[in-house]
Amino acid sequence: MTRNINAYISLGKDRLDKELKAIFSKRNIPSNLHASMTYSLFAGGKRLRPILMFASYDTFAKQSNKVLKAAVALEMIHTYSLIHDDLPAMDNDDYRRGVLTNHRKFDEATAILAGDALLTYSFEIIAGDDLLCADEKVFLLQALTKASGAEGMVAGQILDTEGEQRELTLADLEKIHELKTGELISFAIMAGAYLANIDEERIQYLTQYAYYLGLIFQVQDDILDVIGDPEKLGKPVGSDLENHKSTYPNLLGLEGAKEQKQKYEQLAISALEKADAMDSYLLDLLHYFSQRDH
Amino acid sequence: MTRNINAYISLGKDRLDKELKAIFSKRNIPSNLHASMTYSLFAGGKRLRPILMFASYDTFAKQSNKVLKAAVALEMIHTYSLIHDDLPAMDNDDYRRGVLTNHRKFDEATAILAGDALLTYSFEIIAGDDLLCADEKVFLLQALTKASGAEGMVAGQILDTEGEQRELTLADLEKIHELKTGELISFAIMAGAYLANIDEERIQYLTQYAYYLGLIFQVQDDILDVIGDPEKLGKPVGSDLENHKSTYPNLLGLEGAKEQKQKYEQLAISALEKADAMDSYLLDLLHYFSQRDH
Repeated sequence: MTRNINAYISLGKDRLDKELKAIFSKRNIPSNLHASMTYSLFAGGKRLRPILMFASYDTFAKQSNKVLKAAVALEMIHTYSLIHDDLPAMDNDDYRRGVLTNHRKFDEATAILAGDALLTYSFEIIAGDDLLCADEKVFLLQALTKASGAEGMVAGQILDTEGEQRELTLADLEKIHELKTGELISFAIMAGAYLANIDEERIQYLTQYAYYLGLIFQVQDDILDVIGDPEKLGKPVGSDLENHKSTYPNLLGLEGAKEQKQKYEQLAISALEKADAMDSYLLDLLHYFSQRDH
Repeated sequence: MTRNINAYISLGKDRLDKELKAIFSKRNIPSNLHASMTYSLFAGGKRLRPILMFASYDTFAKQSNKVLKAAVALEMIHTYSLIHDDLPAMDNDDYRRGVLTNHRKFDEATAILAGDALLTYSFEIIAGDDLLCADEKVFLLQALTKASGAEGMVAGQILDTEGEQRELTLADLEKIHELKTGELISFAIMAGAYLANIDEERIQYLTQYAYYLGLIFQVQDDILDVIGDPEKLGKPVGSDLENHKSTYPNLLGLEGAKEQKQKYEQLAISALEKADAMDSYLLDLLHYFSQRDH
């Protein structure tokens, strides 16, 4: 089988967008709240987490809709975290992906509530997924709440905020990224494999792969803030250096950051080999993440 | 059996507080986030929702710990909603129950994240409750996400905010309160009865009871803002009138509001009769809510 990663990503994106639209077309949500929630859900997200979940599932099982609702839920959590992250009290960003952030398009109160509603809704969607049995729902909900809560993503947000006040080591930086973005990426990979019914040992290796994939994603993010094209990124570059933010290039230099990324790549590939999953979109996505220009 | 409602409430409060403390003693949460979450959880809440859940369960089944985790989860959702509600972009309150609000004690970013973490954690707790089977967990999670999300409590928050800009009818007011506070109160009653295994028809009547109980709670809140004792309330009174807020007294006059409360009481008692639950703490709690002075 020849694989075309761009086509695969594009198909996955369409699949997710279609499901999201269907879900929001039949809900009884106050119009302003509905508008605010869907605004950010359709504000140009790359859907990378859902696509990772699809790829993980497709590597081990026949394509089906079994992962679709969980993928939607994951994207909602990611979106809520961006809305709250952009708020004036947090990163105070006016733009994201070239369009106004939620609180700038609506207002702060609406943005806070839209985030709250998306977070809550994500768990409702999994709990109400007709294609899963109760045990599967509970397993996914336990994993997703843990990944996104006070010991996962929210912990990463707090540590990231606190980290802005001091100089971080490479280990600090890895810890923050693992929590802030890595946990949801790991959930994507783990959930796809779990729903495809693969054994515990291989899931462990895939979780290692996901860990390094998350770090690769982040190094590349940092590198793009140095050498990226503002047009392609939809945001200005150079702000990390200006804000003395702890990033890979600021910590290791640009070349050092690139080398670190290569180390992560080797470790991710080694984990993928052990999971017996080299002939898959997971390998392609690794390269895609590592080389992305936006 | 003679019932002592004050002793029952006090016992329920202790039971809940103890479980909350135990849960937070063994978690790996960044210290500042941990402090912010527990600050609001232990900032003098009356635990009325958990106590309602206990009372509903105890009316139909032998006392057990089966409802304890769900009650904790519910209190966390209530607490998160207060933290976000108090934020500068929302009600902009500096004090609640006589102590500093979360964002005043910590900062806005921490308060937003503590709310997010409490919301997420509430679902994690139900998903991980060892005393429930998977079907029970899924049932509760579906009900709780619906009650607290974009078609429930968060919808009520948005409508409440929007309602401040215009004059509301009694029907508008009832709708907002049903969503903003009623949904969680209904969940408390419904979940207790469900876990006690009572039949669907009686749960329906109890849900009616809960609906009117929620409205009674709110009328009394509005009445206390007119004639309450600021010392007992832990907050100044008269702000509703000053802010031209749509409340029962502003809409119906003080006497009209009291009459409306009596109507709700009669309807709540009638529902309780049909549920065959008159000889219970649910009746006592109705009077307690209706006559509370803080």
